[in-house]
Amino acid sequence: MKIGILGCTGAVGQQMMRVLEERKLDIEELRLFASERSVGKTFEFNGKIIEVENMTNKNFDGLDYVLGALEADLSKEIAQVVVDAGAVYIDNSSAFRMNENVPLVVPEVNPEDCFKHSGIIANPNCSTIISMVAMNGINKCSKIEKIIASTYQAVSGAGVKGMQELNAQIRALAQGQVVLPEVFTKQIAYNCIPQIGSYDKNGYTSEEMKMQNEGRKILHNDKLLVNCTCVRVPVIRSHSISITCITEEKVELEQIKKSLQETKGIVLENEPTPLEVSNQDLVYVGRLRNDLVFENGISLWCVGDQIRKGAATNAIQIIEVLESGIQTD
Amino acid sequence: MKIGILGCTGAVGQQMMRVLEERKLDIEELRLFASERSVGKTFEFNGKIIEVENMTNKNFDGLDYVLGALEADLSKEIAQVVVDAGAVYIDNSSAFRMNENVPLVVPEVNPEDCFKHSGIIANPNCSTIISMVAMNGINKCSKIEKIIASTYQAVSGAGVKGMQELNAQIRALAQGQVVLPEVFTKQIAYNCIPQIGSYDKNGYTSEEMKMQNEGRKILHNDKLLVNCTCVRVPVIRSHSISITCITEEKVELEQIKKSLQETKGIVLENEPTPLEVSNQDLVYVGRLRNDLVFENGISLWCVGDQIRKGAATNAIQIIEVLESGIQTD
Repeated sequence: MKIGILGCTGAVGQQMMRVLEERKLDIEELRLFASERSVGKTFEFNGKIIEVENMTNKNFDGLDYVLGALEADLSKEIAQVVVDAGAVYIDNSSAFRMNENVPLVVPEVNPEDCFKHSGIIANPNCSTIISMVAMNGINKCSKIEKIIASTYQAVSGAGVKGMQELNAQIRALAQGQVVLPEVFTKQIAYNCIPQIGSYDKNGYTSEEMKMQNEGRKILHNDKLLVNCTCVRVPVIRSHSISITCITEEKVELEQIKKSLQETKGIVLENEPTPLEVSNQDLVYVGRLRNDLVFENGISLWCVGDQIRKGAATNAIQIIEVLESGIQTD
Repeated sequence: MKIGILGCTGAVGQQMMRVLEERKLDIEELRLFASERSVGKTFEFNGKIIEVENMTNKNFDGLDYVLGALEADLSKEIAQVVVDAGAVYIDNSSAFRMNENVPLVVPEVNPEDCFKHSGIIANPNCSTIISMVAMNGINKCSKIEKIIASTYQAVSGAGVKGMQELNAQIRALAQGQVVLPEVFTKQIAYNCIPQIGSYDKNGYTSEEMKMQNEGRKILHNDKLLVNCTCVRVPVIRSHSISITCITEEKVELEQIKKSLQETKGIVLENEPTPLEVSNQDLVYVGRLRNDLVFENGISLWCVGDQIRKGAATNAIQIIEVLESGIQTD
């Protein structure tokens, strides 16, 4: 396999390199691309030194897969060039997620969609990926009709700069200094910010609407209703989501527990925390219990590493599905 | 007025002294009580030095009000002695909250209940107080039938020791040291812990069940259904709660907005954060919007200072209601 990474210097791009190594994909050549200012930087991959190429030269000939870790606007500009060069473009940005011809895939949930691509496959939003891995275990018992979610999102969701801002604020505060926010709208150290993304007319943020819009596509359920509240918390790199979901039919808790235990990509544990689940690829589901408000309701807490399962790992699992060639549905 | 404070050395007891000063209650005498090891310590109140008395001597003669900032088991031991001495006991612990003869009061919501006491009045749980101030503004438009809540609770909920633990962990981590949790079950710095209190058989924690049990009593609605998920976050002293509530009838968002603006104790603002609302007494309500899942649903984010409105200020407002003698209902 010949693989390229666009945006190789960012948090997700760097993680993609590490995950490719760890999962021992059979890679003949890895090429790294970034904007002009990073050209010439080098990174080690599988013991070899690789020099960063200029992304704007748009030279992707010979690549089988290109992993995109770019902002949405940049991704939109370059996707067709990648496809025209003959590579499958797996995009971590929001640019193509809702396009009809672009599969939106969480490999544990809807791997079969990978094979319906026309050159581009999209990685869902990070909170959505983590939530949908958990929802999948319940959806198999009875169709999920409604989801009420509140997120506890790590600063890594805003990239390397987000992580740097939290650390810098904590350091500055320890020295009694004033802290001005740059990446986030307000101080994130010792705080929770109930806004991620821009506002839609309905009062929800773009980040909040992703859970419903992308959730519908991933679960193949156009009628799924999702109410999400997205909150940034002073955690480094794992997202947590408090979820109440309502299924079409009443399912016994024991059956759901069994299904979650048997579902790929899930670890069932009572009180997983974002700190504990960081730096690995599974989604931890805890606090599983019957809802007290709705007869068919189930409540739970799910947690996953935002940079890995929420982004890099999910994209690489998509390559693995394509390579395995096994259409499970 | 002659007032006593039990547990005057803790976070809530100390805050009670400051709030009594700030709100300029007409206090003839303040007496401070704590356990034996604090006897002889002194605190300044309204310019006078007051020496801490031994609580276990149980000498409360002549006091009009005694404010309790004790653990529930200690509070249970001492409450009757306070009442027998002729004082009204306003208890911040969970000891008497669900007792039939004990009013459970959020002064902005059910002040009239203050006058039904038999010597003891209880302060509700801190997250419940903050949530109920917000719910009150909606409940006046149409009865709230269901609440789904996820909390973002500050470390101050575990007292001075909780705040010290977060600060100590942040400092230790900055020096590359290992951090062992003592107050909380896991490291709280850079983490979220989805467990506060002990577990009931139904899988909910004691802290989570308070929102339903106490909420029913405060809102005078035995049929209120509440599903709560309580989560500890690395924030110093203000609690935030993400709430979706469902009313009996459909109410227009503009009407709810107007009601919240006119409701005592509330500030309506789009994105209030726990850091910004600390060190004051109002409950900030933000992110107000129609729910996307339930026709009569409303979603919001509310935030309040846990030590003040969630504990000390609420107790002192109860004294103010009793002193004003105005029964509003």
